[in-house]
Formats: sequence, structure tokens, C-alpha cells
Amino acid sequence: MTSPRPVGATVPIGVSNRHLHLSPADVSRLLGERKSLTVDRMITQPGQFAATERIDVVGPKGTLTRMRVVGPARTATQVELALTDARTLGVAAHLANSGRLAGSAGGVTLVGPAGSVSLSSGVIIAARHLHCGPGDATRLGVADGDWIDVVCGTGSRQVIFEGLLVRAGPAHATEVHLDTDEAAAAGVSTGDQARIVAWRPAP
Amino acid sequence: MTSPRPVGATVPIGVSNRHLHLSPADVSRLLGERKSLTVDRMITQPGQFAATERIDVVGPKGTLTRMRVVGPARTATQVELALTDARTLGVAAHLANSGRLAGSAGGVTLVGPAGSVSLSSGVIIAARHLHCGPGDATRLGVADGDWIDVVCGTGSRQVIFEGLLVRAGPAHATEVHLDTDEAAAAGVSTGDQARIVAWRPAP
Repeated sequence: MTSPRPVGATVPIGVSNRHLHLSPADVSRLLGERKSLTVDRMITQPGQFAATERIDVVGPKGTLTRMRVVGPARTATQVELALTDARTLGVAAHLANSGRLAGSAGGVTLVGPAGSVSLSSGVIIAARHLHCGPGDATRLGVADGDWIDVVCGTGSRQVIFEGLLVRAGPAHATEVHLDTDEAAAAGVSTGDQARIVAWRPAP
Repeated sequence: MTSPRPVGATVPIGVSNRHLHLSPADVSRLLGERKSLTVDRMITQPGQFAATERIDVVGPKGTLTRMRVVGPARTATQVELALTDARTLGVAAHLANSGRLAGSAGGVTLVGPAGSVSLSSGVIIAARHLHCGPGDATRLGVADGDWIDVVCGTGSRQVIFEGLLVRAGPAHATEVHLDTDEAAAAGVSTGDQARIVAWRPAP
């Protein structure tokens, strides 16, 4: 049986506001010993939640107050910004896939209710990507590590975003993640649909 | 002789920050009787300049202070925002071609050193477009009213912006105008190059 080709299929868009993930050690430093993140609301990706706790992120040029923490705690602390946010902070963050923090920017200080943490790395502009659950991966004909291009928006705001990495597997719920700059450029919001217009298999 | 096709040609990008144009009457109301806009620096488009004078724009949800005025004065006052700016002000501005203000949003107040002006219309998100001088229009094979798609940015930030109106003639200097949301989404700045990837003649 031939897999279906994904070109032409539509997938929902999720707009990622700036947010951060915290290591267990940084949870303790920022929130206090024996504290842990508390669930404000579950988000689309399985097992992940927006935490009640908020953290100020202080950069050389500006501060982003009360940034959302996405839990649960992860191996490494990671601050995910749009390019506009990085400019507000004054940090030369570059594009990276989530979790790939080698060579990422530092130079910001996280400030929580119990303490602060200075980061020497971990600040990224998260590259747009497609999360894809196992059922949808089969249905669409995509696999983890593939690349797609998607068209978003309508009329004069229509934009094609090229080179989205596909992240498929049981840890994922199907959603194209764009940052706030990309969503504003295409005039789209969470729940709008993106259409796959090109597909390249994992190298 | 057949005109060259524009597909494949590159054109420089100019990023348009939010700005406003003022009618002569509004110049008087905001800056004072017998005052006129003064040149801070000439900009790329022929005869146009960034004025020394700055204007605060007050919306229902927020204020954008010291907004740049582009002179000289025009028939109608027009505030050009990115979608993000419109959200900051709390104004439901929609996409429009510059100068096409029928049905455009109002609800903001302009505040200058000599007075203020409440706008009932004139607030737009300026649709991206290509300005094109007469020589370049001939060289590229485009005419006023044509439509093009352009690719901007490199690597994982590469984006295709569809549906840019071509505005060609002696009043124009060749430049793709993107707003700040679009530029951030593609990771491009003024002076970077866009490549034309599709062309449709004026209907």
C-alpha cells in the first residue's frame, strides 16, 4: 500500500507565544526549594501545561514581565522567543529547533518569586514546525524528520512558510506551530488552518 | 521585442515601520497654524521624507508614542500600522492598499504639540507591495497594477509572500515594502533582497 502524499492536506495552526521551560534545579532557584510548577491549564501537546507561575526575563535592553512557563520541568532551561521579543530584550538569539541549545544565546536573567538565575545559553527563536500524532502521521503520510512547506492566511495576507520540521510520534498532537511574528505576518490565529504545499522526506 | 519576465529577478527590501501621513489641515491642528513638516531625512521614495515632528497615537487599549510622520502632507491623513501595532492600540484595522481609505478603521486620537485630532477613519495595515521606478519596470517586465509573489529570508526563515501589488511609475523607487511583522517573520531587514517567484499581469 502506498502512503498518501501530504500535499494538499490541512492541519490546524497553534500560535506559540513567548514562553520558557525550566530545569528542576531552576524551578527550585526561582520558585523555592521543594516547590514545583502548578497547572494553570493543559495545552494541546500531550502532558504539557501552562503553569500558574510567571517569570520575568531581564535582558540588556529590556524586560519581558510575567512570561508563561510551560511545564512539566525539562532537562534544560529554554526561553523561546519571537524575533521581536529578542529585540525587546536586546539578545542576539538565533533560530533553533526546540531542545537544540548548543551555541544558543544567553545574557538574560530569569527572576522568580524566590530568586534569580542568569542564563549563559538557552535563549532561542524556536523554528516553526509541525507536531504530528501517530495516527495523523499515517493518515497524512509524513514521518518524524520530514520537511514540509505550508500556506497560511487568506487573500492578500497569504504566506507560504517553507521548511517546517515534522516532529511525529506519541508525544505530539497535530498542530503547526508558528511564533507570534509569523502569525501576525499571515494574519492567522490559533485554530486557523494551514495547508501543506510541499513535502520532502527526512534525509 | 518581448519583455523580460520578472520571475527570478531580485529587488531590495524596505521595511516600513509604523508611520503616518498628515493632511495639510491636520498638520495645522497638530503642529500649529502656519507650521509645516520639516525634513529630518529623505527616504527612498522620491520626494518623501521622514519628518522631525513626532505624533502620539492614542487608541482604546494603548498608545504608540512619538510615531514618525512621513511628509510631505497628503490629501488625507493615514496611519499605517503592522497588525501587532493595531493590537497594541486596540484598533480593528484591516489590510488596505495605501490611499484606499474607504471603510478603514478610526477610533484613534493623534496628539501633537499644538493640539489633537480624532480620526473616524484612516487607520490601515498597509498591504505589502512593490514600488518600481520606470527604468526598473521596463528592465523587470512589470507594469503598474501587476501582482507578484516574492521569496524573502534564508534557510529555515525562508518565506514566500504572495500577492504584492506592483506600483510602477516615476513617483516610485524600486523596493519591496514589508511591514515589521512580515520582516520579523522572514528575519529580513532593509537592504536585504527579495526574489520574484511568480507574476500575474494586471487584470
